[in-house]
Amino acid sequence: MASDQVIGSLVGVGLGPGDPELLTLKAAKAIRCARVIAYPAPDVGDSFARSIASQFIPEDAVELPIIIPMLAQHFPANEVYDQAQRKIEKHLDQGTDVIVLCQGDPLFYGSFMYLLIRVSKAYPVKVIPGVTSLTACAAAATLPLCGRTESLTVLTGTSEDSLLEPRLSQGGAFVIVKVGVHLSRLRRVLQRVGMADTAVYVSHASLPHQRVLPLADAPVDAPYFSTILVPGGNVIRGG
Amino acid sequence: MASDQVIGSLVGVGLGPGDPELLTLKAAKAIRCARVIAYPAPDVGDSFARSIASQFIPEDAVELPIIIPMLAQHFPANEVYDQAQRKIEKHLDQGTDVIVLCQGDPLFYGSFMYLLIRVSKAYPVKVIPGVTSLTACAAAATLPLCGRTESLTVLTGTSEDSLLEPRLSQGGAFVIVKVGVHLSRLRRVLQRVGMADTAVYVSHASLPHQRVLPLADAPVDAPYFSTILVPGGNVIRGG
Repeated sequence: MASDQVIGSLVGVGLGPGDPELLTLKAAKAIRCARVIAYPAPDVGDSFARSIASQFIPEDAVELPIIIPMLAQHFPANEVYDQAQRKIEKHLDQGTDVIVLCQGDPLFYGSFMYLLIRVSKAYPVKVIPGVTSLTACAAAATLPLCGRTESLTVLTGTSEDSLLEPRLSQGGAFVIVKVGVHLSRLRRVLQRVGMADTAVYVSHASLPHQRVLPLADAPVDAPYFSTILVPGGNVIRGG
Repeated sequence: MASDQVIGSLVGVGLGPGDPELLTLKAAKAIRCARVIAYPAPDVGDSFARSIASQFIPEDAVELPIIIPMLAQHFPANEVYDQAQRKIEKHLDQGTDVIVLCQGDPLFYGSFMYLLIRVSKAYPVKVIPGVTSLTACAAAATLPLCGRTESLTVLTGTSEDSLLEPRLSQGGAFVIVKVGVHLSRLRRVLQRVGMADTAVYVSHASLPHQRVLPLADAPVDAPYFSTILVPGGNVIRGG
């Protein structure tokens, strides 16, 4: 490798929750100037990340979809990222930046982590932060999440009751992400800790089919990327 | 009031952490089209919120600075928001939207809550979410916050040890905001729970004078808006 050879950077770009208008100016610019663009995609159907960014993707950009099998266990998912790493590093070696499209924010419950861990061993990595589902859901519900000195805890709906209940009992504000099939169970947990009445259900925040409902009225077939907001006491008491 | 009279909306606009390029496209557009713009400002010096958005503010927009005295107790701060409410509602009554500039996100530890509570009683309120300091700090440090089913808890540095220590002991990922003068004490707490070695200090994320340091090397004169990131176990173990 000649000493003056420039290597490219891996750039994780947060796209926000779904509305293309919620991309940052910096993200839109990075995508518009991109020569190589990678993104997660399901084995069947379209990539949500790509669909958010589609209007900004240059026609002549090289696209590297990272196909994540829906029922991935640990081993095959590792293989997927190993393979993506090899494809990405080929472009970085040629001095070309590789833009990775990330729904929400790249470092907040994102699969970008798996590329970062691999690629950062030998190449520079940059991240453009994005609007997370936390604040997108709060905006959809026009509901302040937390104020003053209050804590805010993000829990995943997949967690067991034995983990959720002691945390909820400590108070503060809560956001439960990845609700999906766990909705009824989560509702029972929130009832037990006396938080069900103020909780709000949100799905598809920022998209045309966005839904905001009291938790009691949430649909039984909640999608995986749905969220429950439990505002903190400061918010409920009005500051 | 004539039945066909249109009233304006209060619009909370998230500006992100400080870099004007981290405004969303939607926020930039809302500000560019604004006729009335309100923003928090200190009694001495410039408004940080206004400075982030300044390049997008139309020259002929009416500006309503909300002067927050630095040493506000509860009573005078209420007076400040009552007064701001009266000024804002005068414009809403005339059918003009009022844009409120909010550093970070309007509903995440923001003073926008105090306007929302007041104005939403009689007028429509909308919120454009923004990039929070959480993910801006993670991006500055190129450090994933949390992955998979891990919890993420946001704590404020002003909280007492007796609140912080049991929460930290439960594990997961943590972000401590509003560190400031509490830095040394927070470092001792994190040492006691065995989290000091992986913790990262970040100040002025996304700005030219951004600093990212191992917690051990953080400056003793940390600014109020500095942050400590404690990545979760999934991140430390590499997924």
